[in-house]
Amino acid sequence: MLRPHGIILFAHGARDPAWAQPFQAVRTHVEQLRPDTRVALAFLEFMPPSLPEAAQQLAAQGCAEVQVVPLFLGAGGHVRKDLPHLMQALEKQHPDVRWTLQPAIGEDPEVIAAMAAVVARMGRTG
Amino acid sequence: MLRPHGIILFAHGARDPAWAQPFQAVRTHVEQLRPDTRVALAFLEFMPPSLPEAAQQLAAQGCAEVQVVPLFLGAGGHVRKDLPHLMQALEKQHPDVRWTLQPAIGEDPEVIAAMAAVVARMGRTG
Repeated sequence: MLRPHGIILFAHGARDPAWAQPFQAVRTHVEQLRPDTRVALAFLEFMPPSLPEAAQQLAAQGCAEVQVVPLFLGAGGHVRKDLPHLMQALEKQHPDVRWTLQPAIGEDPEVIAAMAAVVARMGRTG
Repeated sequence: MLRPHGIILFAHGARDPAWAQPFQAVRTHVEQLRPDTRVALAFLEFMPPSLPEAAQQLAAQGCAEVQVVPLFLGAGGHVRKDLPHLMQALEKQHPDVRWTLQPAIGEDPEVIAAMAAVVARMGRTG
């Protein structure tokens, strides 16, 4: 059996459940673009699932490799320090899965350009 | 004299100066798209300028109205609670400027779609 690929969208989390809505929308879009891929959300704090929990689910589904994508605009301490430690733990716990850490989504030129385009339009309506 | 419009891109801030690079890139893009508008960055914590400092600069440049755009992916406590208080203070301190608070950039469908497109491509390279 061909083992599926996985993607974990890793976000900060917040006390208000409504905070997660944009991240859930990103997940839905990615699932539409990649129907062959298992796409999970995970949060650093305040809301479930944690990264280890989401990783456990994808490993249990037989994923051969999982990309972890930080849904952060800038790469601060959470992305540069906390996340590499979490990745090391995943590699130990699930050695049969290839885990890859991607750059923070906010550093991508396409995301930067989209934010700028939206801001420039907001300015026009003021 | 026609008073210029202003935009303040309001981000969280971090201890590492490199964290601010994507936000500076957004600012540069917006300046290119809106050469008639004064565009400033401001940070909630860890790095200057603060929102009151950036607001003071734009007011001193004669801006008639300033849009404050939260460069946050989700609207958590910083956007829903801290920022409205900061806006009230700006209105008191600069009553001759019209201050408008925009939604968090991460809630915009175009930004959500761009993030999803980038993530979907990341998956392909794994």
